[in-house]
Parts: sequence; C-alpha cells; structure tokens
Amino acid sequence: MGMTMTQKILAAHARLDQVEAGQLIEAELDVVMANDITGPMALPIFKEMAQKVFDKDKVVMVPDHFTPNKDIKSAENSKAIREFARQQELKWFFEQGKSGVEHAVLPEAGVVTAGECIIGADSHTCTYGALGAFSTGVGTTDIATGMATGRLWFKVPSAIRCVLTGTLPPYVSGKDVILHLIGKIGVDGALYKSIEFVGEGVSQLSMADRFTIANMAIEAGAKNGIFPVDRETEAYMAEHSKKAYTVYEADEDAVYDEVVEVCLDQVRPTVAFPHLPENARTIDEVEAMDPIYIQQVVIGSCTNGRIEDMRKAAAILKGRTVHQDVRVMVIPATQKIYKQCIQEGLMDIFVDAGCAVNTPSCGPCMGGHMGVMAAGERCVSTTNRNFVGRMGHVESLIYLASPEVAAASAVFGYIANPEKVGV
Amino acid sequence: MGMTMTQKILAAHARLDQVEAGQLIEAELDVVMANDITGPMALPIFKEMAQKVFDKDKVVMVPDHFTPNKDIKSAENSKAIREFARQQELKWFFEQGKSGVEHAVLPEAGVVTAGECIIGADSHTCTYGALGAFSTGVGTTDIATGMATGRLWFKVPSAIRCVLTGTLPPYVSGKDVILHLIGKIGVDGALYKSIEFVGEGVSQLSMADRFTIANMAIEAGAKNGIFPVDRETEAYMAEHSKKAYTVYEADEDAVYDEVVEVCLDQVRPTVAFPHLPENARTIDEVEAMDPIYIQQVVIGSCTNGRIEDMRKAAAILKGRTVHQDVRVMVIPATQKIYKQCIQEGLMDIFVDAGCAVNTPSCGPCMGGHMGVMAAGERCVSTTNRNFVGRMGHVESLIYLASPEVAAASAVFGYIANPEKVGV
Repeated sequence: MGMTMTQKILAAHARLDQVEAGQLIEAELDVVMANDITGPMALPIFKEMAQKVFDKDKVVMVPDHFTPNKDIKSAENSKAIREFARQQELKWFFEQGKSGVEHAVLPEAGVVTAGECIIGADSHTCTYGALGAFSTGVGTTDIATGMATGRLWFKVPSAIRCVLTGTLPPYVSGKDVILHLIGKIGVDGALYKSIEFVGEGVSQLSMADRFTIANMAIEAGAKNGIFPVDRETEAYMAEHSKKAYTVYEADEDAVYDEVVEVCLDQVRPTVAFPHLPENARTIDEVEAMDPIYIQQVVIGSCTNGRIEDMRKAAAILKGRTVHQDVRVMVIPATQKIYKQCIQEGLMDIFVDAGCAVNTPSCGPCMGGHMGVMAAGERCVSTTNRNFVGRMGHVESLIYLASPEVAAASAVFGYIANPEKVGV
Repeated sequence: MGMTMTQKILAAHARLDQVEAGQLIEAELDVVMANDITGPMALPIFKEMAQKVFDKDKVVMVPDHFTPNKDIKSAENSKAIREFARQQELKWFFEQGKSGVEHAVLPEAGVVTAGECIIGADSHTCTYGALGAFSTGVGTTDIATGMATGRLWFKVPSAIRCVLTGTLPPYVSGKDVILHLIGKIGVDGALYKSIEFVGEGVSQLSMADRFTIANMAIEAGAKNGIFPVDRETEAYMAEHSKKAYTVYEADEDAVYDEVVEVCLDQVRPTVAFPHLPENARTIDEVEAMDPIYIQQVVIGSCTNGRIEDMRKAAAILKGRTVHQDVRVMVIPATQKIYKQCIQEGLMDIFVDAGCAVNTPSCGPCMGGHMGVMAAGERCVSTTNRNFVGRMGHVESLIYLASPEVAAASAVFGYIANPEKVGV
C-alpha cells in the first residue's frame, strides 16, 4: 500500500519498509527541542532516566517564551536549562540576545532540515514541516524520553491532502491561506492527521509562507503539516544549513482520508475572530460590519515574525503613523531578522510610525509579557491562537491576521483592509 | 539671609520673598507627574478631592515601568491612567511605542524646564534638577493633592554645596561622579537636603552627565539635586522645549550645611557593590580583587539610557562580542534615542555583539521585566539602585556602574576596566 510523505519519513526512522495509519511505531529522532517553559519541566523526568542526553548535537534548548526574563520564576527556568545545556555540552543552546524564537531560529540556524524526525515540547513544532520534515509537538514526558533515548513512539497518522493551485494575489499571504483552511475544516478538522500540502500552488509560496502555514497545522488539530521539498526548499537549506538531508515523496498510490483544494488566487485577506482560529472571516465580510476598534496590534511570533513579514508590515506603515488609540508591538523573531530590519530601513519605519520594537521573544503571544491585554481590549495579532484569555485578561479579544492586515489596522485603529491602504 | 538656589525657587513658588531651611511652605506646582505604578494608586485619592485636574497641561502620565504590559495587572494599570488622561484631556500622556522612560522623556519632550517646581510620584524625579529646576519625588497622596490643587507643602531643605573642579578624564562620566560622591557622603549623607552642584567643573559636564548625577541625588538621601543654568542648559532647552523658563541663582551669602569638593580629574571609573550605592569602589580596587564573574549586564534606565550613554557603550562593544556566559539588555530610554541608535549605527553594533535591544521601558531596573535575575546571578547595571532583590531574586547581586564599565564587563564576563579595552 502506498505511503504518504509523513508515513515514509516515519517508516525510515522506524527502520521499517512499510507503516500504515494507526500503527504504533518507535522512531529515531533527529532533533529534540525544549524551551524555557517545557525544558525545566522535562529535566527532572529526564534525570530519572539518564545521566547524559542521547546525542549532544541533537538536543536543543531555546529560552524564548519569558525572555528576557520577565520575573524571578522565568529567570530560574532559563537558568535551569542553561546550566543543563552547559553540563551536557549541548551544541545548540540559544541564548537571549544571540538567537530568537525557537521555530524561527531552528530553521535559520540550520538545526532542522528535510526528511528529519523532529519533536519539540511546544505545540508549534509542526513549523518545520515547511522544510519537508516530520515535526510535531509533544509533552514533557515525551521530550524527556526523547532526550534520554533518542527514540519515541508514534501512532502513524493518516493524512489530508491539501491541493494548492494558482498564485497568491497582492496583500494575501500564507497566514490568510492557513486561516482560510482552518475556517474550512475547523479546529478539529485534521485531528491527529497529517496535512500534506501539494499541488502546483506550492511552488508559488515563499518559504516564509510555508513556515506560517505549517506552523498553524496544529490549529486544525493536525499531528503535523508538511510540504514537499522543491528548489525553494533546497535553496533555503543550502543557505542556512550544513546538515545532509533526505527528500521523501509521497507514493503515487498513497491513501488520504480527504482531499481539500485551496485555490490561492481566491484567498482573501482573512481574520480569525475570537475565540477560535476557525472563526475565519474574509476582510470583505469584516468591512461589511461595524468597525471593530482595537487597542493593540502585535506583529511577530513563530507564525509571522520573519523578515518577509516585517517587510510586508513596514510597506504598509511606511510614511504613516500608528493610530493614537493603538499600541503596536513589533517583535522580529530572531536576532538576525532584527538586524535585517535595521539594515533594510524597516526599523526606522516602525519606530517613526510609533511602534514599540522589542528584542526577539514569544512575548505577548501566550500572554507572557511585552504586551499583555487588559479587560475589554482588542488586539489584531499575527500570532496563532485567539483562545479566551490567551493574551491577557479573559475579557480581552484576539483577532488573528496577517502582518498586512495587522499593519493596516494599526494605522486605522480598527480592523482594516490592507488593499485600501496601498503601499 | 541669603538663599540657596533651591530655596529661591521654592520661595518664588510660594510667593514669598524669603524662606529658610526647615520652614513649612506651600508651593505652586509647574509639573505633576505619575507613572503606571503610582498613577493608578493616586487616582482614587484624587477622585475624593476633585473632578478635574488643576491644569491639564501640567499633569503628566507616563506608563513606563511595566510596559509593554508585562501582565494583566500592569495592563489594567496602564489602562487606568490612559483612560484618566483621555477623560481629563491631559496634554501629556506618553504612550508605549511613542515615548519612553519618564525621566528621559520629560526633558526630551520639553515638559520640564529651568526654575520650575516639579513633583513626580517616582523617587528619581530629582533628575530634572539638571535643568536648574526644583524637582523631587513624592508619594501617591501628595501627587493626588498636586493633581487636584496644583499646590503642595514642602519643608524647605538646607543644602550641601558640591563644588566640581577640573574635567572628566576619558572613560569617566557622570555616573562615576555620583557614585564617587555617594561613596564619600553615604546613602544618608544628604538626608532631606538639596545637593547644589557648582564650580567651574559644571561647564565641563554634558547635559547627559548632569541628568545622571541629578538622577541619583536621591541615593544620597537628598530632597533634590540641582545644577546652575549655563549655556549648555540653555542650548538643551532651546532644542527641546517651547516653554518659557526662569533662571535662579543661589545668593552669594547663601548658607550651606556642608561643602564637598569633587575634582573631576581624579574621579576613577567607579562601581557600587551590593547592596548599597554608597559601597563605591574604584575600578582599580576592583582590578586588585579576584575577578567578579557576571551573568547579566543592563545598559539603560532613567540614569543611563540617553544617547550619550548608548554611544559610550557602543564604542566599547564595536567589533567585539558579548561573553558567552553573559546576557546583555540594552534599553534606550526613549523612542527618539532608539531611533538615533539606528541612525548612528549603534544598534548594529549592539545586535552584532549579541545584545538584546528592547523598546524603551524601566524594564529590569526594579525587577520589573526584560531581564530579571535568578538566585546567585550577578549583574553590572547602569541603573540607580543595588538594593537586595531589586532586580530579581534576593540572592542576586547588582553592581552599579557607568555604560563604559558595563560594556567592558559584558565583553570580558567579569567586572572590567574600560580603559583596558580601548575604543
């Protein structure tokens, strides 16, 4: 029986010729990642199992959620994984001021590549599927096991085949595609399944778009999201990584639970309304409503903190100023992106417009710090979750959108259509 | 009987020809300032006294301590003063992303000028004494009274006359001068007194140096610190403010409790050891000790977050990298300074060196956020207080120093002499 792309990666890592959906397997791991929230929880479990990590080049720690340390507890947590990383001589410890948000910095630093089997103690670990890897978020017990043994059990997922056709229009990006898709299939539409993105539309998507799309596969309940490896992927890896990689392709006779088609030409700027990513409305629907006034805008995160996102936001903000009733937090996802923002003049644009530009951090995405909301406040955010209270008070409201919608909304003070602003 | 400079300002604001030390007076206020910690506490008290502030051009609110909002409580606090500012139509409300740290932004925006009587619900309100104003920190009840009535009682302070001679050598700045002085007279050396800085050395000090020195007058227990108005002061005000100002001079026969002389030529780079600003050691004394290894460096705050401070730190960091065991937080004190850092290439230097550069905020200075410390960690900080637990865990240690000492220490990983680095 034919296998999906994900199944082929899992089979190879389980050293099996064939796996099928529902099968329990044990796979070898190429990267095991934890952050400053999950790492400290995993350490005591790890210590019950092993003295040393299975491979010091494959266990990665990234203090990015509550850093620069927001309080004593987060400082203690960062310290715990820092000391662990030193004691274990880990190759990859991404320190504050020298790295960034885990899901942006791992691809950028070349830690993750195509064909790998990757786990991370963070929901959005599925991001690396953009590179043609199997990558998924796991809990702390699983991450501790992975750190100790280099192996983990998986139930082989079945898959949804998402066929992309056409080309994205101006002011529409990967974020709109994934919000559109989640709106279509729902937050449990891909529960424990792979979403395999295929079709001629893939080649029209930048790597940034693909990272954004794969990043939010979990928001449809997916075990992972994955893209085929093409010239764009290979060019990205050649630029960023020195690791060898393996290209897997789905078998022609692979079995899919479902096929969903997304015609990129027809995707509109899309906003996910509170309190679920599936509450997707097109910008046209939003414009037909009474204005939704906002108090905050967040541009950044593992979903939309890449240089392409910064460029898109800056193109809208250039020569304009943030509305007087709005606070805007711009958080480039890595130190390298932050530097690029300076070099390309984007930082000037943000600062002149009246944005607060912060050092790389997950920041306000999960209500951590750097822009937490009070009761009754509304935020347009390029992040990935708009659950109740996610970014602060339970009575605050989050509208998920692209960097362009976010930037246009910052200027107008209500959720706005970037097409109407022009660049 | 002759009056000191401070006494003359207070007499004028009390509409009296003469005041003397110890006298209780009621003075008219030119500026009444509160921040996101003290403002929300003052509002309920204010509301018992008045419906409207005494003058909407003279009551100033600055959300700078826990901003961008670090948590729900701080978001609610910022919201409270924001709504108050709107309702009262305050001329000056300094929003996140558009302003900065109170004691840097008020002079920069021209809100405070020479000869004024200023109160702020923040200890370091004494900063504006650098402009030849009487300026002091008060509690929330006093600030509420000031907001409601435009008046406040004061006990007229006696004064210490601090005579400055000579010129600062390279690698020595205002921070070293004030740490040296506090080391000499102690943290209660000027209790409820004015420190009036005079002498030919004053003209050799930049406005940035004077702000730093006046800022820390409170750390010697002073009611205020104050500088005469000279050409440098007038040039600064001409650049920043449209307000009229009045120049006061101490009478020739003014009475001082004490005269202290500081020869600027002989001031050495100085570090205040835990846990008091009076624990001043010269860098030579530090170098004679075993190395004091550090984990964090903070460059910023109302004390040392000005463009001159950024330039000095960048000159040391240029072409160098932060030591692998050290995290460095650079926090320009205002949006304008942040912008200047970009334009002058300082931001590139900080980012290339591996510093985390944050949006303007008080940040870690009082353990707020953006760099709070864990147990056992040591920080070289350009801030103003090294009390037990001030920047995090009660077992963390703070060494106060200039931007140059801080930058040199960041490179070496221990408290280091900037003279040995060279620029």
